[in-house]
Amino acid sequence: MAGKVAVVLGSDSDLPAMEPCLRALKRFGIPYEARVISAHRTPAQAEAFASAAADNGFGVIIAAAGKAAHLAGVLAAYTTLPVIGVPMKTSMMGGLDSLLSMVQMPSGIPVACVAVDGGGNAAILAAQILALGDPALTEKLREHKADMERAVMEKDKTLQEEQAK
Amino acid sequence: MAGKVAVVLGSDSDLPAMEPCLRALKRFGIPYEARVISAHRTPAQAEAFASAAADNGFGVIIAAAGKAAHLAGVLAAYTTLPVIGVPMKTSMMGGLDSLLSMVQMPSGIPVACVAVDGGGNAAILAAQILALGDPALTEKLREHKADMERAVMEKDKTLQEEQAK
Amino acid sequence: MAGKVAVVLGSDSDLPAMEPCLRALKRFGIPYEARVISAHRTPAQAEAFASAAADNGFGVIIAAAGKAAHLAGVLAAYTTLPVIGVPMKTSMMGGLDSLLSMVQMPSGIPVACVAVDGGGNAAILAAQILALGDPALTEKLREHKADMERAVMEKDKTLQEEQAK
Amino acid sequence: MAGKVAVVLGSDSDLPAMEPCLRALKRFGIPYEARVISAHRTPAQAEAFASAAADNGFGVIIAAAGKAAHLAGVLAAYTTLPVIGVPMKTSMMGGLDSLLSMVQMPSGIPVACVAVDGGGNAAILAAQILALGDPALTEKLREHKADMERAVMEKDKTLQEEQAK
Amino acid sequence: MAGKVAVVLGSDSDLPAMEPCLRALKRFGIPYEARVISAHRTPAQAEAFASAAADNGFGVIIAAAGKAAHLAGVLAAYTTLPVIGVPMKTSMMGGLDSLLSMVQMPSGIPVACVAVDGGGNAAILAAQILALGDPALTEKLREHKADMERAVMEKDKTLQEEQAK
Amino acid sequence: MAGKVAVVLGSDSDLPAMEPCLRALKRFGIPYEARVISAHRTPAQAEAFASAAADNGFGVIIAAAGKAAHLAGVLAAYTTLPVIGVPMKTSMMGGLDSLLSMVQMPSGIPVACVAVDGGGNAAILAAQILALGDPALTEKLREHKADMERAVMEKDKTLQEEQAK
Amino acid sequence: MAGKVAVVLGSDSDLPAMEPCLRALKRFGIPYEARVISAHRTPAQAEAFASAAADNGFGVIIAAAGKAAHLAGVLAAYTTLPVIGVPMKTSMMGGLDSLLSMVQMPSGIPVACVAVDGGGNAAILAAQILALGDPALTEKLREHKADMERAVMEKDKTLQEEQAK
Amino acid sequence: MAGKVAVVLGSDSDLPAMEPCLRALKRFGIPYEARVISAHRTPAQAEAFASAAADNGFGVIIAAAGKAAHLAGVLAAYTTLPVIGVPMKTSMMGGLDSLLSMVQMPSGIPVACVAVDGGGNAAILAAQILALGDPALTEKLREHKADMERAVMEKDKTLQEEQAK
Repeated sequence: MAGKVAVVLGSDSDLPAMEPCLRALKRFGIPYEARVISAHRTPAQAEAFASAAADNGFGVIIAAAGKAAHLAGVLAAYTTLPVIGVPMKTSMMGGLDSLLSMVQMPSGIPVACVAVDGGGNAAILAAQILALGDPALTEKLREHKADMERAVMEKDKTLQEEQAK
Repeated sequence: MAGKVAVVLGSDSDLPAMEPCLRALKRFGIPYEARVISAHRTPAQAEAFASAAADNGFGVIIAAAGKAAHLAGVLAAYTTLPVIGVPMKTSMMGGLDSLLSMVQMPSGIPVACVAVDGGGNAAILAAQILALGDPALTEKLREHKADMERAVMEKDKTLQEEQAK
Repeated sequence: MAGKVAVVLGSDSDLPAMEPCLRALKRFGIPYEARVISAHRTPAQAEAFASAAADNGFGVIIAAAGKAAHLAGVLAAYTTLPVIGVPMKTSMMGGLDSLLSMVQMPSGIPVACVAVDGGGNAAILAAQILALGDPALTEKLREHKADMERAVMEKDKTLQEEQAK
Repeated sequence: MAGKVAVVLGSDSDLPAMEPCLRALKRFGIPYEARVISAHRTPAQAEAFASAAADNGFGVIIAAAGKAAHLAGVLAAYTTLPVIGVPMKTSMMGGLDSLLSMVQMPSGIPVACVAVDGGGNAAILAAQILALGDPALTEKLREHKADMERAVMEKDKTLQEEQAK
Repeated sequence: MAGKVAVVLGSDSDLPAMEPCLRALKRFGIPYEARVISAHRTPAQAEAFASAAADNGFGVIIAAAGKAAHLAGVLAAYTTLPVIGVPMKTSMMGGLDSLLSMVQMPSGIPVACVAVDGGGNAAILAAQILALGDPALTEKLREHKADMERAVMEKDKTLQEEQAK
Repeated sequence: MAGKVAVVLGSDSDLPAMEPCLRALKRFGIPYEARVISAHRTPAQAEAFASAAADNGFGVIIAAAGKAAHLAGVLAAYTTLPVIGVPMKTSMMGGLDSLLSMVQMPSGIPVACVAVDGGGNAAILAAQILALGDPALTEKLREHKADMERAVMEKDKTLQEEQAK
Repeated sequence: MAGKVAVVLGSDSDLPAMEPCLRALKRFGIPYEARVISAHRTPAQAEAFASAAADNGFGVIIAAAGKAAHLAGVLAAYTTLPVIGVPMKTSMMGGLDSLLSMVQMPSGIPVACVAVDGGGNAAILAAQILALGDPALTEKLREHKADMERAVMEKDKTLQEEQAK
Repeated sequence: MAGKVAVVLGSDSDLPAMEPCLRALKRFGIPYEARVISAHRTPAQAEAFASAAADNGFGVIIAAAGKAAHLAGVLAAYTTLPVIGVPMKTSMMGGLDSLLSMVQMPSGIPVACVAVDGGGNAAILAAQILALGDPALTEKLREHKADMERAVMEKDKTLQEEQAK
């Protein structure tokens, strides 16, 4: 089963907001390639990339874009791989434009949308998808979940100790 | 100067809402072709159509789509012709999803957006654009403007007469 | 690789809106179980179901809910399986409440959100995920994509023929 | 009658925004415990806490969370104590996501929602609830109301004096 | 401890939408009085009612209003009793005007807001508040919670049986 | 005809945002009194002030408030003087909460709402109202309009000259 | 002092929604003229009407328009009379487009905006303005206020009697 | 065919946000004139300018305005030239007020709306319109499109090289 993830940015200015995504993929040991492809400025590259993504060993595509944010939908038009959309925060109601443009896909061509600026969660979702065929990755996800639980419980304990003083 | 207008529908279900557009084009005597092309279901057709639109004698493209409404932007990616977007009304805040998805285009690839369900105005805008190279069309637009003015004044007169009774 | 899909409804009143989801799963030959589980009224069932979902042979969970729409997030808290959320249309801005409640998940626990009332797309997304380990399913998705393309082209042809008359 | 208030934070990053809540509880002499419990990262703790809250002497639960903000609803699912929700401000339309996620609870499981970042008011609301069985607390609420009235009248007087100069 | 609930309607046209509230109060055996009092048309009545509510044996006030929806806040200004606000659905974005007008109360004067048209939940919330001093009412709330759980499980069973056919 | 204007602030923190209002009233030579009166914290003062406003020589009341922003409506309930509402900017969608709370008044009790943070325009509107009985004030308003026109034309000229360089 | 009110409709289709406005003006015995003038289709009429309104004996202008709803602002540009705007309900979020287009006027040119479809309140506001120079009209407004109060109290009494049965 | 573009600013404070527009027009070698004309403060100038624009050699009008943003519509009322609207960003939901005020034009008078603060795209759209009668300009637009494509591909290459390190 293909295990590589593509992280496609609509603009290189989206890179800082997507660092949590790349870090999370690294943490899970998932091979990935980050690309800058614009649905509107390089539509031929978008088509070429998405059409060949499955053959090139990709299992999941993560697409980050803002405002009209057509990127995820355009890639999804050319592949049957699951496409995860990350709407970028904008000054238009905090990214509602990006969110609606990504999530409101027409019948037949889904995009799996995560939260505005939710790059880290996009990586976890990709891991969850790939883990269906990869028990070791499932194990990593369980550990990550346990780590998060421990971290919250630690903070809870700290807060309770501070109050006890 | 090319005088043909393309009216591209993202779905044939958009046809009734776009009838005012087709009627207005007819009224102005502007040759047009109506097409059903989906940015997501027939992306190759979208690319082929937009790439060849100028060579095929089109001067303006009108694109109607709802929800994620990527159609206008996808066509604009493949042509330098002006692309007019008509956001279709939806149940999501009356079409705010369609509107934001169409109008919030990234720098470099504009879409000329009209009102939600504003197909008639899209036709007039296309006429205004084509009229720059067509004095007879300018004359028709002036007459249309005068007709509208007269119609409103007529209604105003009727209302005043009713009050006078 | 686990191939069963769970379709969890927050209320049985969501069933009509989710029929397209069940139909699509059937069309792709994907085994599924539809359940009514409420995040708030049967939280213990939600926990029990999600905690055991992977062991019970589920590969993907689709959760449909409206308004505060916590269901998808609550299930995601108890599993590392991918959880697809379907926000139900409401009278509050056409379902913006359901959408934001589902998609704006905190860091660490993703939900893969599709369009408001997008049950059919949720099924296709589930198929795309399961197809990563199932070449025959990939083939069905390609056929479905080709069918959709043909259907749009058919409508385009019909529209052009009508205009030619 | 149980007089202890639980202030549950979905994340310790919500603590600064909830300081007015803790300060107000102190001012009214209401015993409270502040906790960090995540509906999604520590769902078992959420369940355990809420299920036992009444037995552990709590009378009211205040829950603060942002974005998808399921915390208040998840706690309410496991208790019949009144649960007050404080939606945290976010960059998504100033917290509209948190607000809708908290307030739009389904029939049967209410959350008492206050204003975005309204932690102080959550404390007063908790005091008003507990005061039903505690005349001394009612007296403190009346004094607080009178203090607020005096403070506004003082500012009004100052402004009028400045204008008289 | 005072056990009577006031259900104040901003207009008698809100009565149908608030029937679930009255029914729920009856089901829990909570004595209540329904009133029509307008914050803007009968401000003196609003003041008189709220100022004397505690002395007249009320423990909780439920206020339903739409659009500018000042009623809950105006009543809260004159009492230290907990005031529950029920924003009525309107044609302005499904009641977002009512919701924001009710929930965004300034510091010092809280309103406990429930969902748009959430009259039933307002009654349950009132019951939860009154139950703090009334173990028999707590028991009824637990039974109600168990009833809801059973009803959902019943529907879940029915759905599963239908699928098994 | 009464010529005094009341400028009522819901909080003294609204004073800086309302300075343009006070400055404009001074410019037009309109006598005014600025007050801090809270609809929720000093409801008795609000009632007393509004009830006596006409008798105390006020002709117009300007009320500025944010968030739930009930102030203008509460004052309007107690007087037949025209009440102008100025919704204060907030972090909730830029003041949409204040705007809707002010402008969506129920039938029978109008508030004349101006733009968010539109204190200056509230003053001009008050002047326009008072000018109906004061030809000298009408003259000042015409001069002000002419001044604004000249200022814009001056800027237009400057911009054209810069381009000509 | 000028006592005539102009009720300007952006379209004759706005007439039914503005009937409550005309009825209210009649009830108060205020002379009015209803006109159909479009800011965009008959801009010359708009200019001519507004420029001469004061000289023609109008004291207040009420303007009703939907969607882009420029009418009130355009009239206000040509007069120093107070202009009351009535945003018409639309399918775009219930008239939020009309509301924002009317109320968010730039500094210098105010529009006094009432609620969406609030024609009746526009008439009362006009009466309140004209009453500043007309004690008899003030008296009618007080009677109207008293009538509304009585009507609400009547309904309150009816509701209480029904409960007593 | 007329080749001059008018860039009309509602206020000189809009100049910085519109610099990308002026720069883009320069880059394409399109003659333009920038003007400051206010729909509300200098309505006579707006009328005079728009009425004579075609005769004065303008082919396209670009209008930038914020908040109520009537400028584009007011100009469009007086001309049959295509009018492009640029809604300025505001603090009201990131410019949703400007956007809706510009784009929701009534039937008969279109405005071609681009993204909030999308001045650069307005210039490209103007170029696309003028290019219909100017093959050399079409060539420049194609080069610009190719430049944008190359720039994105360059950034893509850089990102891939960084990952390869």
